[in-house]
Amino acid sequence: MPGPDKLEQARACELREFPLPELEVDSALLRVELSEVCGTDVHLRDGRLTGVPYPIIPGHVSVGTLERIRGTICDVNGRPFAEGDRVTFLDVHLTCHSCWYCLVAKASTRCPKRKVYGITYGIADGLTGGWAEYIYLKPGVRCIGMDGIASDLYMAGGCSLPTSLHAVERADVQFGDTVLVLGSGPVGLSAIAFSMLRGAGRVLCIGAPDERLTYACRMGADDVFNFTEHTLTVRSDWVLQRTDGRGADVTIECTGSPAAVTEAMRFTRDGGRVVVVGQYTDHGVTSFNPHLDLNRKHLDIRGCWGSDYSHFHRAVDMLRNPRAAALWSTLKLERYALTKVNEALAAVESGRTIKALVVPTR
Amino acid sequence: MPGPDKLEQARACELREFPLPELEVDSALLRVELSEVCGTDVHLRDGRLTGVPYPIIPGHVSVGTLERIRGTICDVNGRPFAEGDRVTFLDVHLTCHSCWYCLVAKASTRCPKRKVYGITYGIADGLTGGWAEYIYLKPGVRCIGMDGIASDLYMAGGCSLPTSLHAVERADVQFGDTVLVLGSGPVGLSAIAFSMLRGAGRVLCIGAPDERLTYACRMGADDVFNFTEHTLTVRSDWVLQRTDGRGADVTIECTGSPAAVTEAMRFTRDGGRVVVVGQYTDHGVTSFNPHLDLNRKHLDIRGCWGSDYSHFHRAVDMLRNPRAAALWSTLKLERYALTKVNEALAAVESGRTIKALVVPTR
Amino acid sequence: MPGPDKLEQARACELREFPLPELEVDSALLRVELSEVCGTDVHLRDGRLTGVPYPIIPGHVSVGTLERIRGTICDVNGRPFAEGDRVTFLDVHLTCHSCWYCLVAKASTRCPKRKVYGITYGIADGLTGGWAEYIYLKPGVRCIGMDGIASDLYMAGGCSLPTSLHAVERADVQFGDTVLVLGSGPVGLSAIAFSMLRGAGRVLCIGAPDERLTYACRMGADDVFNFTEHTLTVRSDWVLQRTDGRGADVTIECTGSPAAVTEAMRFTRDGGRVVVVGQYTDHGVTSFNPHLDLNRKHLDIRGCWGSDYSHFHRAVDMLRNPRAAALWSTLKLERYALTKVNEALAAVESGRTIKALVVPTR
Amino acid sequence: MPGPDKLEQARACELREFPLPELEVDSALLRVELSEVCGTDVHLRDGRLTGVPYPIIPGHVSVGTLERIRGTICDVNGRPFAEGDRVTFLDVHLTCHSCWYCLVAKASTRCPKRKVYGITYGIADGLTGGWAEYIYLKPGVRCIGMDGIASDLYMAGGCSLPTSLHAVERADVQFGDTVLVLGSGPVGLSAIAFSMLRGAGRVLCIGAPDERLTYACRMGADDVFNFTEHTLTVRSDWVLQRTDGRGADVTIECTGSPAAVTEAMRFTRDGGRVVVVGQYTDHGVTSFNPHLDLNRKHLDIRGCWGSDYSHFHRAVDMLRNPRAAALWSTLKLERYALTKVNEALAAVESGRTIKALVVPTR
Repeated sequence: MPGPDKLEQARACELREFPLPELEVDSALLRVELSEVCGTDVHLRDGRLTGVPYPIIPGHVSVGTLERIRGTICDVNGRPFAEGDRVTFLDVHLTCHSCWYCLVAKASTRCPKRKVYGITYGIADGLTGGWAEYIYLKPGVRCIGMDGIASDLYMAGGCSLPTSLHAVERADVQFGDTVLVLGSGPVGLSAIAFSMLRGAGRVLCIGAPDERLTYACRMGADDVFNFTEHTLTVRSDWVLQRTDGRGADVTIECTGSPAAVTEAMRFTRDGGRVVVVGQYTDHGVTSFNPHLDLNRKHLDIRGCWGSDYSHFHRAVDMLRNPRAAALWSTLKLERYALTKVNEALAAVESGRTIKALVVPTR
Repeated sequence: MPGPDKLEQARACELREFPLPELEVDSALLRVELSEVCGTDVHLRDGRLTGVPYPIIPGHVSVGTLERIRGTICDVNGRPFAEGDRVTFLDVHLTCHSCWYCLVAKASTRCPKRKVYGITYGIADGLTGGWAEYIYLKPGVRCIGMDGIASDLYMAGGCSLPTSLHAVERADVQFGDTVLVLGSGPVGLSAIAFSMLRGAGRVLCIGAPDERLTYACRMGADDVFNFTEHTLTVRSDWVLQRTDGRGADVTIECTGSPAAVTEAMRFTRDGGRVVVVGQYTDHGVTSFNPHLDLNRKHLDIRGCWGSDYSHFHRAVDMLRNPRAAALWSTLKLERYALTKVNEALAAVESGRTIKALVVPTR
Repeated sequence: MPGPDKLEQARACELREFPLPELEVDSALLRVELSEVCGTDVHLRDGRLTGVPYPIIPGHVSVGTLERIRGTICDVNGRPFAEGDRVTFLDVHLTCHSCWYCLVAKASTRCPKRKVYGITYGIADGLTGGWAEYIYLKPGVRCIGMDGIASDLYMAGGCSLPTSLHAVERADVQFGDTVLVLGSGPVGLSAIAFSMLRGAGRVLCIGAPDERLTYACRMGADDVFNFTEHTLTVRSDWVLQRTDGRGADVTIECTGSPAAVTEAMRFTRDGGRVVVVGQYTDHGVTSFNPHLDLNRKHLDIRGCWGSDYSHFHRAVDMLRNPRAAALWSTLKLERYALTKVNEALAAVESGRTIKALVVPTR
Repeated sequence: MPGPDKLEQARACELREFPLPELEVDSALLRVELSEVCGTDVHLRDGRLTGVPYPIIPGHVSVGTLERIRGTICDVNGRPFAEGDRVTFLDVHLTCHSCWYCLVAKASTRCPKRKVYGITYGIADGLTGGWAEYIYLKPGVRCIGMDGIASDLYMAGGCSLPTSLHAVERADVQFGDTVLVLGSGPVGLSAIAFSMLRGAGRVLCIGAPDERLTYACRMGADDVFNFTEHTLTVRSDWVLQRTDGRGADVTIECTGSPAAVTEAMRFTRDGGRVVVVGQYTDHGVTSFNPHLDLNRKHLDIRGCWGSDYSHFHRAVDMLRNPRAAALWSTLKLERYALTKVNEALAAVESGRTIKALVVPTR
């Protein structure tokens, strides 16, 4: 994927050949089975993220087979992986565990040393993206064994799994709560499922288009609303009618639209919680009334950035649970060969695909 | 205090005589020793709050002597008060302990049944404000004995005690944290003191005018900055220079200015907490960038509305501690007779007084 | 139910007739549809609880129809109930919302004023138990409408619903956690279900007899173990083998045996949480090693006493969710007429019944 | 310090000479200014800890000057240290940040890879203890600059600083709480100070001997009691009389006696918190009644093991605050040359010294 400084017609991925890397000690070569195309990849194509060392190989969350291991790579239980094992890996690398954010604030997703495969690692760093036949797993990359979990099932969630699990953790859902999810893209869909699995009494979703809302219901939403067909007032009434006039206990914003953050405050009951996880790129400002929307409501608003190893690990553990697995297995997957990733990007951008996977070996 | 629909020259308090009430069972008559004039009283005078049943007797937090008791009034330990006891009381009355907010959300400060002495009780409800010789403590009003605490000391904090204690509770201050307080009015000054008492390593304050900042230092601020003399950029740099370039761990907004809420987000480090307690009336909107100011920062923003009994009780308990008492005893008090409350309101509005008290018996 | 000072052959319930009460303002008469027999009722029969004003009418959690209302009884949303409505009610009455425990500690289950229908209310207080054709709902009793929830389904959980929901709240279950439930009585079975609904990755249960363990699996347990057939060492190994040698993340003790509390500490991983909810009567002491079992393990041990309104309300809300309802609908119910309650008590004591209900109209 | 398998008369430290180490890349040589003798050192001498690779050089928390640096050593803000800088360091080394405890449970004090200077590092690992002229700071050891903090002041707290700060963090002290500290050794004394600094309304201490209790008062205790002079019943009454008959809100056990853990449960109010931080070695068992002491009390009991970097960092930050520094500066220090450490151990064991420091250069 070239950088955004290219002419518009060049803002497309191109296929390139690279030599396989020389493995460092305690590194490995992963033969990619499945990678994915997510909303961030569209933003990457359009140059909307800062700090990206173009050209890059996109694809941050992937699953594959350990083709070659030099030295030893262990899981968190200290068990060494063997060549041939099927794994995923934490796309975040180099969290330093030495800085103030890591050690004092214990906010490792804000560690300034972090590098992310497929996003802030580029071609200059080697085979560091999933839209490729092989990924080079540098020393220190943390792998998770996929025993008992089909690759399809895991990639149906893909990067939305740790992102939305983290968001639902931050949402502090209580038994019986009404959770409102804004947005019906992959993060929104997974947030619906995790909210159900967390003990919500009811999950509402406002999103679009209708096909995605159908999937929202399969993922556990009790009621859905197409925001493109209704004014803000009508949407607000729709929420209030389903919450005894109070608003949702928890609202999880997964839209990408700044205005949705203000709407999330207004759709939430006094003393409730708003988690903002849909603002991964800069789409501009929004305005709100601090008295009416925040202070008098005694509201909690929580930004949610990135994931750490625990979110991947817990997401994988959840998929080992048949009740959870059943939810993600309902999602429709579209597969694209490496030669078709530009079409995959277009499909994701349009919102007409539920989940686009990249199949390098196709 | 008349309502805001009067002509401007009439927007002033006038002295009136009322008969003493017939006491209901388990009620009492409080002879007021001290009441106070706070920023909310200025807003009340100007009609900036909704739901106020003008005309009212202002004065919500007060201290006095139980002149007459009919039936029994007990403290929370079940000990009955005697006539002659010196007490303060929770200005919030009628919290229902029966509604969804009280019983399910456990957010009793959002109970819709609440009435507040001096604010949402008016003359039609009886002697329900502190700017008077007597207050009628209706059945169910919760009194707190003031044994061992000088009335002056308690009223030096006044209503800012429970408000700022609640805000600092919500701020989740950790040992060694740098807390930034925006605003140097009574709530800001008490927030400085409570932050110190909570284990902050350092407290910074941005406020005005200089005299109040002098008091901020006496209340425990390590460093202060006059916002009227510096641009936003200079203020931001001032914070970053004192926080290793990261911003404050915790920012407590106590200003009344909507723009300060956005500034609070920007002055706070990634993964930090912002408590908004300065927006008790509607001063309009502010704008922010959800990506830069919230989501990427992994920020927590917490509105903080009202107080419940625990905040009063804990504040009084703190003043029994000499280390805490020493802080509030530094504040300069100005006393006004009942005939001078309009001057007191003007003094508070101007910001040139630190703390204005009303002395009915003067 | 007579008191324990009777001769042993008299330790049996006897049927008595009482006049219907004169209704006070804002009270009601409930025609009982279903009540239940729980472990506490066996302890009540045997005089193992303190503060019981024998003779009493047992039966604390019940469901029925509002036969007569005098004045107004509202739900927490302020909607008045009508005669003919089917409801359950919070068995705890008179929580004072005025004492230090209620207002400062916010630990209302420790309010000393509480009275519990069927336990600490006796015949002298009127028709205050569920093993009767009618219950007198005194002023202040909080009812919950049962629209959309079958009485059978609700009573399949009965008093174990709020008790175990509270315990699982206290357990702070994280996504993917392994939860170990000790005990397979009604509280244990409901704790299994709520742990699953809370996001546990896996639930293990050690209990007995085998039939109950079969139901444990239906309620969501992934693996079960009959403690009567294995030594402590074998049980411990069983847990360690299923938890990578670490122990459970969370153990919820629901047994009634003091020794199980110490075992719970040992079956739990370092840094994990133990919730003790099975010690509602005094069965004596247990011993443990504070260094090995607590301090070095960095363990959290949490007693869990009683329920408040929120636990009932949230439990009922959960049953409105079909996924949750499906779990409790698997439990086998045995119904007993009022004339057969002594047999019901014997069945519960033996552990051979899963859930014994009392049907007054049978 | 030899191991416990020596004859009793040999259970004494002996002075030995070692060559200075060859520095690895990114390591340093620290010239020790002050180290300390703590209760754990007495247990080490007596062989009461497991996993100690005797012979060892005791002394875990120390302060000194960076005499020689090879490569680069940075603080958590990324600022490199220079030779000549005065520092302390986290005595825990090799926390792996790769295992399940580090990454999933986020309970790094239970990381099995940890090695502690002066305790689980021995002579075979090099100069790894503070009772020496030099300490070898291996690559990865985390140093903290001591600018603005006198070495005396820091070592007056020594290892009790992070230990008790961690305990008070776990205690969840609320404004105005009554905190009871059991034990008046260094950890108890620091726990008193940190409880005050955290917002306790009052701190009580039960300990011995009287001289230590005098220091307890200087550290912030409002009232003290010598347990050696009173029966358990009298001690219990003493606590209840100071807490409206309820018990302490928080009890922090810092004694080393198993029975004190049970007493801590009984001295604490219903719904309160007990932190157990005094059971660092195995002194045997204690018994309690799970119904009366735990379940019915709705109690939280929290083991507290070890410290991580944040506890050291926050403790140092607190000492930069003059209010905090004033507390620790009241403690009486006794200084011992390297040739006198056996006398220092005897003094600590007897309880007659408040704080014993080792001065290698004396």
